[in-house]
Amino acid sequence: MEGIEFTRPMDIERRSMELIGLELKAPVARENEAVVKRVIHATADFDYAENLVFSENAVEIGVSAIKRGCSIVTDTAMIMAGVNKKVLARFGGRVYNFMSDEAVAEEAKRRGCTRAMVSMERAGALGLPLIYAIGNAPTALLTLYELYASGRLARPELVIGVPVGFVNVAEAKELIIKTDIPHIVARGRKGGSNVAAAVCNALIYLASGDARE
Amino acid sequence: MEGIEFTRPMDIERRSMELIGLELKAPVARENEAVVKRVIHATADFDYAENLVFSENAVEIGVSAIKRGCSIVTDTAMIMAGVNKKVLARFGGRVYNFMSDEAVAEEAKRRGCTRAMVSMERAGALGLPLIYAIGNAPTALLTLYELYASGRLARPELVIGVPVGFVNVAEAKELIIKTDIPHIVARGRKGGSNVAAAVCNALIYLASGDARE
Repeated sequence: MEGIEFTRPMDIERRSMELIGLELKAPVARENEAVVKRVIHATADFDYAENLVFSENAVEIGVSAIKRGCSIVTDTAMIMAGVNKKVLARFGGRVYNFMSDEAVAEEAKRRGCTRAMVSMERAGALGLPLIYAIGNAPTALLTLYELYASGRLARPELVIGVPVGFVNVAEAKELIIKTDIPHIVARGRKGGSNVAAAVCNALIYLASGDARE
Repeated sequence: MEGIEFTRPMDIERRSMELIGLELKAPVARENEAVVKRVIHATADFDYAENLVFSENAVEIGVSAIKRGCSIVTDTAMIMAGVNKKVLARFGGRVYNFMSDEAVAEEAKRRGCTRAMVSMERAGALGLPLIYAIGNAPTALLTLYELYASGRLARPELVIGVPVGFVNVAEAKELIIKTDIPHIVARGRKGGSNVAAAVCNALIYLASGDARE
């Protein structure tokens, strides 16, 4: 094909991860490498080697939670679409996303708050161990912070705090970083649904012992 | 909330677009501004001000196609989840994604090619005017190129060529740039489903005269 050699998708992924490893300039702790590399694989943006912040043993905590059947709550349909639900389901976990529920939209409108806030409350009310993967709404992070700080939410297994944006986003991430909630956060403005899904999938593949790292 | 003022999502979006406009350093042609700004809004990555390549009148062509009810084909479930299907449907368009079809996976396996290749063939066989939004698979771009170059595909209305990656990606994008197919391409390695969805939504909002630009 016009000088482009056909390569099998799995081989492309392996070669991509090699190239990313070679180009990584910032030192990345061994235990965080699979997550950092998968995020760069999803963005081709090496900034994530520096802006991803991991609380102590965050990767191990996330992997262990998934192995125990922990489910994932997202704040966008895109994250839900991007997470490897098939492999997650092997451990018993599923993905929740309340953002598109009509009832959530109505409640948010009535209360004058965001759908993300109501979604996080609904997730908390499930009473399940959960990983929160937030790629869009800083108000989702704010709500998790407030619910936890006021004792209305049990400590989440892990918060993946990677909303993207220019208003309130960096501040909301710093709030989570200050807590004792295990977290993986993209400091600053960058992030997004693709980043959130990449972090989830890195943890899922580590849990499954999948070679693609 | 901890010194973070609550702002309504639509106000946040307006303020974000203002901030992006203020920080844009590279000169962006007026007709491409809505697309460039929405991609930066989705990524917080100002590189896109420089790497997005627009063929002549690409934005106008895309907007006009959407207004005529043109549908969008994607190469990921994430793009499909991210496109504003409600507003698109007002014009009569819908979003197609063949990547998760079992029959597509089986055919790809049998032929030793990628699901993206088979998906593009299926899309072409619909015989409809289509916008192709490619955020992941360079082989989708290669297939569109080959089908079109060999006369087996009518000229797409627009190709949004923004796969992300390290292997074959930059090369596949250059192939599309060389054609006379109207295109919006993120030159180099960067891109992704979020970028593809952002470009689609910018065009959809322009078509609908939505103020959020």
